[in-house]
Amino acid sequence: MKTHIAFAMVVALGIASSAAAQSWTPPADAQRCPSKWGAADQRGAGNHMKPETVLRATRLIRTGEVFELGRVLKTDMPFTPGRRFEMEVKRTNMNTGTNRRGSNEEIVFSEIGQVGVQFDGFAHQTIGDTLYNCVKVADVATRAGFTKMGVEHVGTLMTRGVLIDVAAFKGVQMLADTYPITVDDLQGALQRQKLTLQPGDAVIIHTGWGRLWDTDAARYIKSNPGLTTAAAEWIAKQDPMLIGIDNGPVSVTPDPDPNLNNPVHQIALVVNGIHLLENLKLDELAARQAWEFALVVQPLKIQGGTGSTVAPSAIR
Amino acid sequence: MKTHIAFAMVVALGIASSAAAQSWTPPADAQRCPSKWGAADQRGAGNHMKPETVLRATRLIRTGEVFELGRVLKTDMPFTPGRRFEMEVKRTNMNTGTNRRGSNEEIVFSEIGQVGVQFDGFAHQTIGDTLYNCVKVADVATRAGFTKMGVEHVGTLMTRGVLIDVAAFKGVQMLADTYPITVDDLQGALQRQKLTLQPGDAVIIHTGWGRLWDTDAARYIKSNPGLTTAAAEWIAKQDPMLIGIDNGPVSVTPDPDPNLNNPVHQIALVVNGIHLLENLKLDELAARQAWEFALVVQPLKIQGGTGSTVAPSAIR
Amino acid sequence: MKTHIAFAMVVALGIASSAAAQSWTPPADAQRCPSKWGAADQRGAGNHMKPETVLRATRLIRTGEVFELGRVLKTDMPFTPGRRFEMEVKRTNMNTGTNRRGSNEEIVFSEIGQVGVQFDGFAHQTIGDTLYNCVKVADVATRAGFTKMGVEHVGTLMTRGVLIDVAAFKGVQMLADTYPITVDDLQGALQRQKLTLQPGDAVIIHTGWGRLWDTDAARYIKSNPGLTTAAAEWIAKQDPMLIGIDNGPVSVTPDPDPNLNNPVHQIALVVNGIHLLENLKLDELAARQAWEFALVVQPLKIQGGTGSTVAPSAIR
Amino acid sequence: MKTHIAFAMVVALGIASSAAAQSWTPPADAQRCPSKWGAADQRGAGNHMKPETVLRATRLIRTGEVFELGRVLKTDMPFTPGRRFEMEVKRTNMNTGTNRRGSNEEIVFSEIGQVGVQFDGFAHQTIGDTLYNCVKVADVATRAGFTKMGVEHVGTLMTRGVLIDVAAFKGVQMLADTYPITVDDLQGALQRQKLTLQPGDAVIIHTGWGRLWDTDAARYIKSNPGLTTAAAEWIAKQDPMLIGIDNGPVSVTPDPDPNLNNPVHQIALVVNGIHLLENLKLDELAARQAWEFALVVQPLKIQGGTGSTVAPSAIR
Repeated sequence: MKTHIAFAMVVALGIASSAAAQSWTPPADAQRCPSKWGAADQRGAGNHMKPETVLRATRLIRTGEVFELGRVLKTDMPFTPGRRFEMEVKRTNMNTGTNRRGSNEEIVFSEIGQVGVQFDGFAHQTIGDTLYNCVKVADVATRAGFTKMGVEHVGTLMTRGVLIDVAAFKGVQMLADTYPITVDDLQGALQRQKLTLQPGDAVIIHTGWGRLWDTDAARYIKSNPGLTTAAAEWIAKQDPMLIGIDNGPVSVTPDPDPNLNNPVHQIALVVNGIHLLENLKLDELAARQAWEFALVVQPLKIQGGTGSTVAPSAIR
Repeated sequence: MKTHIAFAMVVALGIASSAAAQSWTPPADAQRCPSKWGAADQRGAGNHMKPETVLRATRLIRTGEVFELGRVLKTDMPFTPGRRFEMEVKRTNMNTGTNRRGSNEEIVFSEIGQVGVQFDGFAHQTIGDTLYNCVKVADVATRAGFTKMGVEHVGTLMTRGVLIDVAAFKGVQMLADTYPITVDDLQGALQRQKLTLQPGDAVIIHTGWGRLWDTDAARYIKSNPGLTTAAAEWIAKQDPMLIGIDNGPVSVTPDPDPNLNNPVHQIALVVNGIHLLENLKLDELAARQAWEFALVVQPLKIQGGTGSTVAPSAIR
Repeated sequence: MKTHIAFAMVVALGIASSAAAQSWTPPADAQRCPSKWGAADQRGAGNHMKPETVLRATRLIRTGEVFELGRVLKTDMPFTPGRRFEMEVKRTNMNTGTNRRGSNEEIVFSEIGQVGVQFDGFAHQTIGDTLYNCVKVADVATRAGFTKMGVEHVGTLMTRGVLIDVAAFKGVQMLADTYPITVDDLQGALQRQKLTLQPGDAVIIHTGWGRLWDTDAARYIKSNPGLTTAAAEWIAKQDPMLIGIDNGPVSVTPDPDPNLNNPVHQIALVVNGIHLLENLKLDELAARQAWEFALVVQPLKIQGGTGSTVAPSAIR
Repeated sequence: MKTHIAFAMVVALGIASSAAAQSWTPPADAQRCPSKWGAADQRGAGNHMKPETVLRATRLIRTGEVFELGRVLKTDMPFTPGRRFEMEVKRTNMNTGTNRRGSNEEIVFSEIGQVGVQFDGFAHQTIGDTLYNCVKVADVATRAGFTKMGVEHVGTLMTRGVLIDVAAFKGVQMLADTYPITVDDLQGALQRQKLTLQPGDAVIIHTGWGRLWDTDAARYIKSNPGLTTAAAEWIAKQDPMLIGIDNGPVSVTPDPDPNLNNPVHQIALVVNGIHLLENLKLDELAARQAWEFALVVQPLKIQGGTGSTVAPSAIR
């Protein structure tokens, strides 16, 4: 089956077998460090966040429409194994006072940086013992957060967002369960949509997988269509601010190469310092062909955090 | 003693006594329900969030500057008693795979809707047994969230933000520990800044209290300058989308009337359906005299939640 | 339908209908307060815990055999809805030192007083607004525990334990899913076992339901054989220190009277001040006919807690 | 400096210098494995728990007096840094039913295996990468517990307890802040008390440090009198079931050898497979000279847990 897929790709893409491409090997430290943003850099592609980037995004706001790309945080949403979202309402007593004020709040117990629609910071992933820019985990990890690369350094991101609708390009509502998105898929979809990427963009991939979020959590988690390593590296070369997608791993899962485990997370976060935005709700953007917009996301400033659950939006 | 304080204020501020104004009584249900937004409404002043509101805010973005109004979430930030932010880093083992991928995440235990810079939804506060629009707490509260008025219904808010710099108007960097902000203060500050409020605005009050956030958590929590009931009612009449401030209670604390306990929370959330945005970091906006901007905030979609910790921004 | 079930029971068990007995009404405050242990009492039947009680139990220890009545605390054990046991191992880094000491610990998030094999204190249950001895919940509840009736006051309990093997008396390994245990069942079982109860005993009921704990959590929780109100009141009249059983509710569930919700919890904890010990592992005691023993249980001293998960044992 | 301290001790205590003893080096794997209890053993000194051990302890129960050795679990008790006990009462709504049953429970967030009076299992400590019996941490650690050496395997321990009152032997109520307990101290105290240790005993050390538990948490944690490595190794040679003490580390802290970090934890748990019982409340035992008793402790059966908070007792 794997051979067959590889063969189909060879035919379809007119390139040498990409089976080899999936035999991805993490670059050695010397090859990837210092990062192009400097040896002390902690922001990676977040450095694209400049006034002109904001203004470029602002110019795309023409109708005032806001698309919610976030999802409801709840106990029974899909989770990567080992994560959860437990919540308990606290109905506190009436306060003293003639104004009879009651106050409610909630306790939450959750891997809050890595549940729901989530933004990945650079403390989240490693190649071996090091993070982005070859920061050693052992040097920066404490029980209560990372002393470098924490998500609190990111801040509001506002940039041009481009939806690459790979599902539509392939003529389906949802890509197949383990469909590997190739460079040709990305380029073909962009061509169909008459769009080109620019440095600093938020590159958002629509696979259609998100329609399982509320209907079939087990299938949503089990596998997913996603980027091949070649596709991820091609996007990285376009120099985006972030990569977003409507699944959790971003990488096609399981990887076509059984020896690899989510290499796209490493390509984006560790090798290139590009943030990831996962589990996005993209159905309305796709249905409305809202392919270009101001993408706004405000990661929580969790001190030393690896990421943040977020409620981003696309505005046009 | 109370009379004495009121007298001192009259002398110091040269205005008529506001002691009477603080003898606030919550309006009866019949007086405040149904809300002006309709008997079934759950959005309150969030209904101001319309395309034209977004466009109005967008037109204020001229330089692309982003001011971070959020604060770092950490264990030792100031908390309302009974709340906390506990975090533990989980350094998970290497995944299998030749790509040697390591993955980190964090567990958080927190009253996450009501810590740090926080956005208040309508399930947060009551007058007696009812929320905004006279929804009975007993009818909508479950162990795991509120079936109505949950913060998941809010979504991205983007509107014109106006900073009312009361501290600057009073000629101080920080208002005194229990300073009661009056209607005259608000009107005087706006006049000084040559600004007027419009329906749907985010009205942001600068008291200077936020400078204690990182330096003196005990004092930050103990009392605070804040709105009198009259000032809050005056703002409510201007029909804003939300009220923001650089302290936690919004109300002056303790209340000049010892029989009242944070009446401003009730005036805003319960009586008028106006969201609150608390503990904002406003020092840069004030220092730069950035008084008018696009205010963007993306509350987490906590199902049935009373509020959300947020990382809002002001863009101009 | 209810009549039909009652009729079937009459036929099957050859006893008079107990339907009337289940039309239980909670006694008025004046009928149940002050408790027989005094108006200020917080210990209830825990007052039986005296040196002579310990010595009486000690004399039953003849072989030194210890039966573990506790169960393993784990994420996937049966839970009353709304409770959970979440645990995460913390592998802390090596400590400095030439002795290369590593240290591991775990974070637990759980309704720890009310999960697994659990001991119920008097803050756990109410009739209307009051606890045991007519203490008003509103007077003693704080966010962080109860100022009276907390489980920290209980301490080690060691007393004569008597296993009443109702399942064996009925000639089954496990009573049926909604089997209501009657006074006749208890008396018949004791007669068969040639045992009589004494004041201060730990009365332990074997229904066989515990065999579902590890095999069918859904069925374990859905319903259970348990005490009728008449049976519970009969046991209370025997003046025990505590009542233990191999299910969670103690009461037969659902109650034969559809208007009642776990009245046995109220009869024991609120009306009579008798502690409950739930979800006990009793299979070995029953199989070995170890009907009389020293029962030892050490509730955690959770300040202001409603109960405690425990690992009790029977020693003989 | 170290020499100076050692000299001072020689003078003050009139014993030979024990400085050399503290230059402890963890034994190599080959020296300590397999354990004397067998290569597959997970119980260590818990193997002493046999019927005859229980009977031996039972014979010490002559008056029926119970001494509570546990402490109240609360948010503001002393903690090893990085641990906590957070609790929130859940007042659940009235249940349906004419019996008006209300139900309360609590959520707890805590390093529950390692807070308060705590029992240490063998998954808690390592020498380098291995636990007791040279089990590799990497082979048995999962996110949710250890697959071997978990505290759920321990069960009720009941054995002869012997209080060694070192404080009384030294003529003080509380040993000094960094007092190193020597072999001579232990032997001298036993001689004074006219007691000898037997294999399988619970050896309980009274330092008096526990009187700080409720009065000075900061000092309680900062340092403590405790066992030297030589003293710990001497106790280990007596072949006890467990070692208990009225402080957290058991080891004298800081260690007289600045290169060592709590070597006694390793000597007991990793090298010899002897459980530890920490932060015990021993004041009443000491005041009453209750030196010999039945020690009973029931560790929670936390699946794969490193330890358990407990509420042990001494019965005589």
